[in-house]
Amino acid sequence: MSHLINNLPLVIQDAAAVEGLAGAIKDDMGMLWMLLSGILVFFMQAGFTLVESGMTRSKNAVNIAMKNLLDIAVGSLTYWFVGYSLMYGDTTNGWFFWSGIMQGEGADLFFQTMFAATAATIVSGAIAGRTKYSTYVIFSIVMTAIIYPIAGGWQWQGSGWLTELGFIDFAGSSIVHAVGGFAALVAAYMVGPRIGKFVNGKVMPIPGHNQILATLGVFILWLGWFGFNGGSQLAWGGDDAVAASTVVLITNLAAAAGALGALITTWIWYGKPNLAQSLNGALAGLVSITAGCGNMTAGGAVLAGLIGGIIVVFSIEIIEKKLKIDDAIGAASVHGVVGFWGTIVIGLWGVDGDAGLGIFNGGGSAQLVAQLTGGLAYAVWAVVLSFVVFGILKKTVGLRVTEEEEVAGLDISEHGSIAYPGKRERGQD
Amino acid sequence: MSHLINNLPLVIQDAAAVEGLAGAIKDDMGMLWMLLSGILVFFMQAGFTLVESGMTRSKNAVNIAMKNLLDIAVGSLTYWFVGYSLMYGDTTNGWFFWSGIMQGEGADLFFQTMFAATAATIVSGAIAGRTKYSTYVIFSIVMTAIIYPIAGGWQWQGSGWLTELGFIDFAGSSIVHAVGGFAALVAAYMVGPRIGKFVNGKVMPIPGHNQILATLGVFILWLGWFGFNGGSQLAWGGDDAVAASTVVLITNLAAAAGALGALITTWIWYGKPNLAQSLNGALAGLVSITAGCGNMTAGGAVLAGLIGGIIVVFSIEIIEKKLKIDDAIGAASVHGVVGFWGTIVIGLWGVDGDAGLGIFNGGGSAQLVAQLTGGLAYAVWAVVLSFVVFGILKKTVGLRVTEEEEVAGLDISEHGSIAYPGKRERGQD
Amino acid sequence: MSHLINNLPLVIQDAAAVEGLAGAIKDDMGMLWMLLSGILVFFMQAGFTLVESGMTRSKNAVNIAMKNLLDIAVGSLTYWFVGYSLMYGDTTNGWFFWSGIMQGEGADLFFQTMFAATAATIVSGAIAGRTKYSTYVIFSIVMTAIIYPIAGGWQWQGSGWLTELGFIDFAGSSIVHAVGGFAALVAAYMVGPRIGKFVNGKVMPIPGHNQILATLGVFILWLGWFGFNGGSQLAWGGDDAVAASTVVLITNLAAAAGALGALITTWIWYGKPNLAQSLNGALAGLVSITAGCGNMTAGGAVLAGLIGGIIVVFSIEIIEKKLKIDDAIGAASVHGVVGFWGTIVIGLWGVDGDAGLGIFNGGGSAQLVAQLTGGLAYAVWAVVLSFVVFGILKKTVGLRVTEEEEVAGLDISEHGSIAYPGKRERGQD
Repeated sequence: MSHLINNLPLVIQDAAAVEGLAGAIKDDMGMLWMLLSGILVFFMQAGFTLVESGMTRSKNAVNIAMKNLLDIAVGSLTYWFVGYSLMYGDTTNGWFFWSGIMQGEGADLFFQTMFAATAATIVSGAIAGRTKYSTYVIFSIVMTAIIYPIAGGWQWQGSGWLTELGFIDFAGSSIVHAVGGFAALVAAYMVGPRIGKFVNGKVMPIPGHNQILATLGVFILWLGWFGFNGGSQLAWGGDDAVAASTVVLITNLAAAAGALGALITTWIWYGKPNLAQSLNGALAGLVSITAGCGNMTAGGAVLAGLIGGIIVVFSIEIIEKKLKIDDAIGAASVHGVVGFWGTIVIGLWGVDGDAGLGIFNGGGSAQLVAQLTGGLAYAVWAVVLSFVVFGILKKTVGLRVTEEEEVAGLDISEHGSIAYPGKRERGQD
Repeated sequence: MSHLINNLPLVIQDAAAVEGLAGAIKDDMGMLWMLLSGILVFFMQAGFTLVESGMTRSKNAVNIAMKNLLDIAVGSLTYWFVGYSLMYGDTTNGWFFWSGIMQGEGADLFFQTMFAATAATIVSGAIAGRTKYSTYVIFSIVMTAIIYPIAGGWQWQGSGWLTELGFIDFAGSSIVHAVGGFAALVAAYMVGPRIGKFVNGKVMPIPGHNQILATLGVFILWLGWFGFNGGSQLAWGGDDAVAASTVVLITNLAAAAGALGALITTWIWYGKPNLAQSLNGALAGLVSITAGCGNMTAGGAVLAGLIGGIIVVFSIEIIEKKLKIDDAIGAASVHGVVGFWGTIVIGLWGVDGDAGLGIFNGGGSAQLVAQLTGGLAYAVWAVVLSFVVFGILKKTVGLRVTEEEEVAGLDISEHGSIAYPGKRERGQD
Repeated sequence: MSHLINNLPLVIQDAAAVEGLAGAIKDDMGMLWMLLSGILVFFMQAGFTLVESGMTRSKNAVNIAMKNLLDIAVGSLTYWFVGYSLMYGDTTNGWFFWSGIMQGEGADLFFQTMFAATAATIVSGAIAGRTKYSTYVIFSIVMTAIIYPIAGGWQWQGSGWLTELGFIDFAGSSIVHAVGGFAALVAAYMVGPRIGKFVNGKVMPIPGHNQILATLGVFILWLGWFGFNGGSQLAWGGDDAVAASTVVLITNLAAAAGALGALITTWIWYGKPNLAQSLNGALAGLVSITAGCGNMTAGGAVLAGLIGGIIVVFSIEIIEKKLKIDDAIGAASVHGVVGFWGTIVIGLWGVDGDAGLGIFNGGGSAQLVAQLTGGLAYAVWAVVLSFVVFGILKKTVGLRVTEEEEVAGLDISEHGSIAYPGKRERGQD
């Protein structure tokens, strides 16, 4: 009997040990999932590079690559140095987070960094073909260090004003995509259209130069989005594993529906199923579900994505033909307009477990009001800040290259090399 | 002592808790592995797009991209809506699975969806350059909603007739690849050859337009295959972790051997080591090990892949030169013929742990008979169903575009845009 | 009370069970992380293919693809068959590891295989455009079967002479990259420059043919490097999870800093920010942190990468203009010279937890001496072995194709096909 008594502390310790082990392993698995998700989101930079360069002229392809390379390089450094603290930090940590990052926040900082870089990159395509590289460098720094982190903190910091309001944006339809997309709209307006885009009031098509690279880019973005949305669960194990898996599943369903939505729309509207718009449709489907992927049934996700894919076709037409803004790749429509759609759809048919959140499933209008408030707040923030930043840049370094430089292509004029050097350039081989 | 007695339930509960925790964590890790594997398999769609477009003419590249985009879009929706239930469901769940997917099956449905999309995509390359897009749309729906799910259920549903027979197809040499490959063969036969392929009985080469994109595509497929085969373990942890790792290892070995098999064969046969065939060899190595990756030693995998890589070179020649069927990218050989080889090789030198399964290692001929039965059943199923579907399509919507449309290229005639718009098309820059 | 006593063994067993379960799960998670990391490293082969082909002439692109395909094919087989045993094996296992691989080493062998293939691939780009394919085949076999495994064993085998010395090379700045890079330098010197590279003592530029594919390649390499460095933790869970996450984070920071370092350097030095050099800068940042990613603060990683990105620009100039060696893509600089830098930087400002390792943070010069010793040992090993192997190859099969073959391009002369068959080649469509 004394033997039994001697073992008593062991017994009691055991009960805590099991619970402690369960928690520690859940943390470990969550860190693995976030790190892998961050790696997937990183790859989206390659996707943006291909989509943006494939959908614009070859004479500006090097410039596109240089902008996307810059976004991840600058974004990684600024977000680490100041952005992350600004978004999540408390005053005791101060602005500069770098002293703290060795203490176990690596996976989270890595994951969040990739979101900041994404927000910046959305802008680069819209203003392709005429913007000064030096100007873009400054904007990219401001975007990843200030504009995005402050906006993100409203909701993702945990006790921001939009969180208090009940606003939902699971993975960033508004916080990342609409902020990036509306900044892109303002940027494209401020920089002005490419030479030859609007001739005597007529809209001229300036087709991309490589639709296969654009297609590959969209597949890479679609792939990365599984990490973008799924990783936003921020945990793995038990209910979190089920939830994150469901997020990935419905993210895929919404992308599929978005691609089909645009494909069918162009088939009806233009007479033939169009590739570029179907690709935009897939991206629109993804943006449509980014806010609601934790609060949507599979059927609701399909419907959200399908409508997103239809919206994007008409939004691109309206921005180009009615607003006369030259958004070179439709970024403002895909990320801005559809980002807003993805935000408010939660107020229409979102769910919270078994409970209806939206007005179409008995949830009332409170959620819709919260979604509209948050969505508008992010749109206004992005528009105002972009006006200010590009306004200052216009008065100082200037926004556009010269007419000769634009006609020659930014690759030669801004970077001194071309994307596809061939025989003519070398006079041989 | 009363304290000890009070703790008694805790003690007993503890023992169960450890066991319960172990099971729960294994489930969590298995879900993570399946989800990540599904994400890798998704990326194979990009690989197929690049291989198929790179290996065919540039005037049909947009059409290839539109078919692959369609496969993942349509496949995701149909397989979710009806295919998964048809393949795995019981009668109580009914055909429509969508109401159930929020209850924890996300990772599995996601993973299985990617397999259905792959089966459809295999067909798209074989009939490149002359097939109506509308026809392909209908076939893609039927493939992912009916042909593949029924075939898959024979084996993977758990109590299908082939399972009862002892048939082994771990990740789908027959179920996915041979079904897709033989459907591709029938489709290519039914649609007929491209204009200019067979001139006065002579076989004319129609080379692809971008072998670097094709190479990238094969690397992406090889990458995705680690998820395709490894994820088919359907679990992670303990023996499952070791087994899945071994699956990935021998999948890589078989791919390497397949690439070398084709490389050496072409070096001997044509005098020079050929890239396109070596790429097909790598894919053939992968198809060769897809059925047996859970039942093969590393040495056996190398041998299976090596032979697969040799088979594919001659199979492509025979289908083209003897059968006079114009399979534009060799899909019927890579996925169909080699898929059959990968199925029966288990009956030759497959193993089950330490026990020999095949006739060459003392396992007798029973397994070979099971493999032949299953392999033939899938081939016949794919051939018959494809004849029926394409036969109906031929009588109704028609299979081919007009001669003018084919000569102009499907990109312009079916989709109204080209893959690489350059100066001539724009009359400027 | 007898009930309680009956439960006694269960109680005691429980305590061990919790501990055993924790260990088993850690093993499972570690295996998952290593397998996924190996899959990421595999993808680097696609990245090398794109960088090397994009940065060289289109008439040699098929040859580049064939070399990279060969490296992974040959490397997978030789490293499995002999390399892994040579690097890690004991005498009881013998050289031939294949009988043992079914017993749970799958993930580790898979991961290590990808490192061997990487070491070989580094050489392929440097000697692009003039080297016989048969010669490269033999070198690739020797590299993956002998040169790399013996070198790797000095440190990673666990009780090699460099390990005893206190040398640190976490993921292979020296062991993989400098060995590959210095082998590339010797190979480029032995094979001699491409025709037209040095004309009357003047260095002529031979630009690549596709900078967008090169950019995509660098993004893929950057992606794969997260597995290359992060997976080198060889474990996941608890401190290992935190450590591996930190490795990935600082790997990204160093890459970002390297890209910026080269971008700014070219902006100042050439007047315009250059894409090709910025891409090399990103790779240089990655190589700079590969040895020290387990022993560096985030700030130290940024500084290491930044300097690596500056070094690579000048190293490429010096090797080309001063040493007059034609390294077609700068591999010797990116992997060799910067690999050496990444090795010694640990002796400058490396850390070990909170303790300083390098001379700039109070760690004394002992670590720097160890790093210099190891770094030099690997450089000498690679240089000497490469001289021997290429010397023998020169006397036997020969190193270069004929002048006519080189001018025509290796694609046609060595492989009988071209990368981008167009209208002229077919006389139609």
